[in-house]
Amino acid sequence: MMHQSRHAPKPRHKAACVAQVRRAKIAAHQGKNSMKFCSACGQAVTQRIPEGDSRLRYVCDHCHTIHYQNPNIVAGVLPTWGSQVLLCRRAIEPRRGFWTLPAGFMENGETLDEAARRETVEEACARVGQMSLYQLFDLPHIDQVHVFFRAELADLDFAVGVESLEVRLFEEHEIPWDELAFRTVARTLECYYRDRVGQHYPVGHEYLPPMSVSSSTT
Amino acid sequence: MMHQSRHAPKPRHKAACVAQVRRAKIAAHQGKNSMKFCSACGQAVTQRIPEGDSRLRYVCDHCHTIHYQNPNIVAGVLPTWGSQVLLCRRAIEPRRGFWTLPAGFMENGETLDEAARRETVEEACARVGQMSLYQLFDLPHIDQVHVFFRAELADLDFAVGVESLEVRLFEEHEIPWDELAFRTVARTLECYYRDRVGQHYPVGHEYLPPMSVSSSTT
Repeated sequence: MMHQSRHAPKPRHKAACVAQVRRAKIAAHQGKNSMKFCSACGQAVTQRIPEGDSRLRYVCDHCHTIHYQNPNIVAGVLPTWGSQVLLCRRAIEPRRGFWTLPAGFMENGETLDEAARRETVEEACARVGQMSLYQLFDLPHIDQVHVFFRAELADLDFAVGVESLEVRLFEEHEIPWDELAFRTVARTLECYYRDRVGQHYPVGHEYLPPMSVSSSTT
Repeated sequence: MMHQSRHAPKPRHKAACVAQVRRAKIAAHQGKNSMKFCSACGQAVTQRIPEGDSRLRYVCDHCHTIHYQNPNIVAGVLPTWGSQVLLCRRAIEPRRGFWTLPAGFMENGETLDEAARRETVEEACARVGQMSLYQLFDLPHIDQVHVFFRAELADLDFAVGVESLEVRLFEEHEIPWDELAFRTVARTLECYYRDRVGQHYPVGHEYLPPMSVSSSTT
């Protein structure tokens, strides 16, 4: 539990704060391509193709800054314990109530490995051993690249993280295929069970086109 | 050659424009973590750790937007023609005059494969066949992940792109090891010549710590 100052005007649970930050982060990334003002000088920006360029950019006609926007990386883990796989049921949107592998936006200053481990701690309070790069997914319709590792849990000392409603181990026949949160999670699990037969896990790289029904499930 | 309007106030060569855009893009990424004004409302931002978060963020106290910043992806190709490898001598900073594999910042809306192919066209006017994912590098000190593919050139119809001074094929003994532009280029070539012996090219993933002398060479 967090120590709360007597002078804190609005004492709140740490979990609620963390979940709020998480929601803000997801919302920010969903709206990340929208820009109204120049972050260098504060004047209004316009959208046009700069001379010599071929893409629409936010450009500041006051200080002449061109604001480039680039894809984000989501890093995650497929944590195993013997024949079982650890999944988390999401406590936050998008896809609240659906099952996922621990994964989230890579932060500045992190390696892919560090980002995936951090997400595993945040979502499942779990630690994993050696990480093996496993699946990469291109999702150009949402400007994301997803990178999943395989790793064995260090121990069974996992718990429900602040972003999860439930965290548990699943045997293959128990996987809730119809209740998985994201396609990259489903594909990573499919590849895993396919590769596990021969105990050979080559690194995979796939392009996932937009879904016709909803892009919120990536 | 580009058609120039009679009314164009400053007729310029397309190549110069493209090179200028390229320099702007690199400069923007080098300074990408700096922010003075909120891109949502135009008011000044401050840097602090938001409640429930653990990282320093640019925060707008006016409209309460938190501005998350995340790593960028650089995608590239190791283009081969039989026993030879194609390298480009850079016409632009950083590392002007040094040799590189075609590579650059992945754009929104692209797949890794598309980004790497585009860079190969831009830097070497070259087209490649099927791409095989090959090397991933974590460079957390510059907030980048580099991803290199292997691919055979489609033909010998390559040329000096606007960002290059020279483009040519090298046999292994000709590689200018002391004049390579970036460490990720050198490591990709080292892995290639190591793996070529056994004709087995597993996907590699490495962390490259900051160099003590200069971080400009990543």
